Amino acid sequence: MSETVYKIIELVGTSDVSWDDAAKKAVETAGVTLHDLRVGEITKLDMTIEDGKVKSYRARVRVSFRLED
Amino acid sequence: MSETVYKIIELVGTSDVSWDDAAKKAVETAGVTLHDLRVGEITKLDMTIEDGKVKSYRARVRVSFRLED
Amino acid sequence: MSETVYKIIELVGTSDVSWDDAAKKAVETAGVTLHDLRVGEITKLDMTIEDGKVKSYRARVRVSFRLED
Amino acid sequence: MSETVYKIIELVGTSDVSWDDAAKKAVETAGVTLHDLRVGEITKLDMTIEDGKVKSYRARVRVSFRLED
Amino acid sequence: MSETVYKIIELVGTSDVSWDDAAKKAVETAGVTLHDLRVGEITKLDMTIEDGKVKSYRARVRVSFRLED
Amino acid sequence: MSETVYKIIELVGTSDVSWDDAAKKAVETAGVTLHDLRVGEITKLDMTIEDGKVKSYRARVRVSFRLED
Amino acid sequence: MSETVYKIIELVGTSDVSWDDAAKKAVETAGVTLHDLRVGEITKLDMTIEDGKVKSYRARVRVSFRLED
Amino acid sequence: MSETVYKIIELVGTSDVSWDDAAKKAVETAGVTLHDLRVGEITKLDMTIEDGKVKSYRARVRVSFRLED
Amino acid sequence: MSETVYKIIELVGTSDVSWDDAAKKAVETAGVTLHDLRVGEITKLDMTIEDGKVKSYRARVRVSFRLED
Amino acid sequence: MSETVYKIIELVGTSDVSWDDAAKKAVETAGVTLHDLRVGEITKLDMTIEDGKVKSYRARVRVSFRLED
Amino acid sequence: MSETVYKIIELVGTSDVSWDDAAKKAVETAGVTLHDLRVGEITKLDMTIEDGKVKSYRARVRVSFRLED
Amino acid sequence: MSETVYKIIELVGTSDVSWDDAAKKAVETAGVTLHDLRVGEITKLDMTIEDGKVKSYRARVRVSFRLED
Repeated sequence: MSETVYKIIELVGTSDVSWDDAAKKAVETAGVTLHDLRVGEITKLDMTIEDGKVKSYRARVRVSFRLED
Repeated sequence: MSETVYKIIELVGTSDVSWDDAAKKAVETAGVTLHDLRVGEITKLDMTIEDGKVKSYRARVRVSFRLED
Repeated sequence: MSETVYKIIELVGTSDVSWDDAAKKAVETAGVTLHDLRVGEITKLDMTIEDGKVKSYRARVRVSFRLED
Repeated sequence: MSETVYKIIELVGTSDVSWDDAAKKAVETAGVTLHDLRVGEITKLDMTIEDGKVKSYRARVRVSFRLED
Repeated sequence: MSETVYKIIELVGTSDVSWDDAAKKAVETAGVTLHDLRVGEITKLDMTIEDGKVKSYRARVRVSFRLED
Repeated sequence: MSETVYKIIELVGTSDVSWDDAAKKAVETAGVTLHDLRVGEITKLDMTIEDGKVKSYRARVRVSFRLED
Repeated sequence: MSETVYKIIELVGTSDVSWDDAAKKAVETAGVTLHDLRVGEITKLDMTIEDGKVKSYRARVRVSFRLED
Repeated sequence: MSETVYKIIELVGTSDVSWDDAAKKAVETAGVTLHDLRVGEITKLDMTIEDGKVKSYRARVRVSFRLED
Repeated sequence: MSETVYKIIELVGTSDVSWDDAAKKAVETAGVTLHDLRVGEITKLDMTIEDGKVKSYRARVRVSFRLED
Repeated sequence: MSETVYKIIELVGTSDVSWDDAAKKAVETAGVTLHDLRVGEITKLDMTIEDGKVKSYRARVRVSFRLED
Repeated sequence: MSETVYKIIELVGTSDVSWDDAAKKAVETAGVTLHDLRVGEITKLDMTIEDGKVKSYRARVRVSFRLED
Repeated sequence: MSETVYKIIELVGTSDVSWDDAAKKAVETAGVTLHDLRVGEITKLDMTIEDGKVKSYRARVRVSFRLED
């Protein structure tokens, strides 16, 4: 049925490797199932820096969960 | 007293009929009371499509709830 | 002649029924004539809430009036 | 397979009745099929005005079609 | 370790005095600890009005909490 | 009744002291009453500078007045 | 004195020649004096088209007038 | 009739002379007729540089064509 | 010659691996040549999710093609 | 003469007290003189948090300096 | 080689004549060479006003210089 | 002490490999130390194209340096 209500959650994933990996961590932590909206939308990318080097990549991701009836 | 703190929640309502109805479903699911901020703010409108037809209208709505003291 | 100057006015229409109706009320109150720019541009949609129900739909509309020479 | 490429098209639907209907006209003209991305995203709402009345509602919608391999 | 996931929460603080104070109330209610991201980002400022006077300053603040492992 | 039309006015308040005060001056000059929308929305903050010092804080505020029936 | 309040007006200038000229027409119609903020800020540029040719350039300009004490 | 559907096309015009001319070239190449929406909307202005001099002005313009019935 | 007109096309590339790869697929499908503008501009990043895992990375890319004289 | 060129610098001021004070520190460090553009434009406000308390207010300010002839 | 790093500078050009000329002045002051990115991107247009007349056109332009290795 | 002033610099990193690498190059060229704000914020992603292939990924990054006392 197409009349359900969803709640949007915004997460920040972090990774030593890449933004792809950072966003993946955020999404896979979230536990999105078949009943939810199956899209993760990127709203911001940044990086933390330590001793002049990139320490971690961070990606903000919005995912949407179906509200219980 | 005007010094309370509110938490903003973003919902996606869906409807077969219209965005007005989609947003209304989201807001009325949310259970906003007299103690909350009584405004629902639209942040996005889209539609899902099936077999070339509009299947549902979706409206993103932000509502604000008073945090318990 | 194409060198006239227009003034933009921003209105908020409200309706118990829909945003279409809210924006229509705003536009039809404005009294746009043949000499004005005949477009109403939506800049925001929101809703007021009372007792957990949608009380009214509100639409912000910008319309443009020709300045008198 | 998840590695296809899509092309985004932006349409303006118009309707005497409502934005819901205007966007629906745009989407249903577009002929979105199962192979395409099945979402229509609204990017602008406005209205045309005639004799001080709303003449038509207009909705800009973005839809995405799969490119032929 | 730099690979944790955070959840972003958006709050509205209110104050009779200033936006600085409104945002501070929101942040200090939130209970941000060493494990969280220690930044509060302002996304909107507004005011409520009563009898022609400013009744309260309101600041929207986004803070980020570490998700439990 | 929830079907009134409002007109949005944008003001710039200035103050030697703070943005809180600048916005307050703008709002309190505006003469918002019970019939109007009782919110002032900040759209821009800046400062004027003289001899290397801040001369005044300026805040742009949008307020909404009910149109006469 | 730096504590005055200003009102922002948004105009649309049109010209057969250029946007520079369209904006100039809007500003010079407005009658900005020494007591006002002496800046005109462009918020939109577009063109009207007739028979496949550009008919006029249009520039939206915001100017700010001092409110009477 | 006000219920037609339009397709938006985004063009980049270039000119040695000015943005006015660049946008005009884009619009006049497009072949907008009476059945189309007769507005060209600017979405970006930039310049190319060669040997420290401006080589060309570039203007992005969006125009809308009526879809065949 | 610097007075040509270009048409902007917006594509969505998808990849199992990364956004870099998704955007690359979109661009390399497009067939940009020496006569076109040789830049691909990212306008959105998102991901599709299946069984709680990232199924594909999607990147929206805008590329510009020279219009035939 | 009105044909000078300016360079825009973006600073972040910090203060224990308020955003007004943070922005003031940034501006007064910058050393804006009569030959420069005498406006500081706020582009972001945020706060740092320590032990659940606001540690400092931060304001991003853009100021413009005249380039030497 | 495609792995250099560039620094973006934002300038404000002013001109008595037009925005085209104002931006040109900013770009030609900047001294962009073959090693730099040869694009100037407009981020804002405004005008200064004196005695009710346009005194100067101002254009904000971003240009990018290659950092020394 | 929390009352220092920082200067924001915007860089463009380029890489044959990925945006992660492009941004990393920009940040690591910048020489951010313990006294600076240790975050690099992405403001734009694009790609250069050659012979129909991606030639390089480019990432715009903003980093903030402490101003000398």
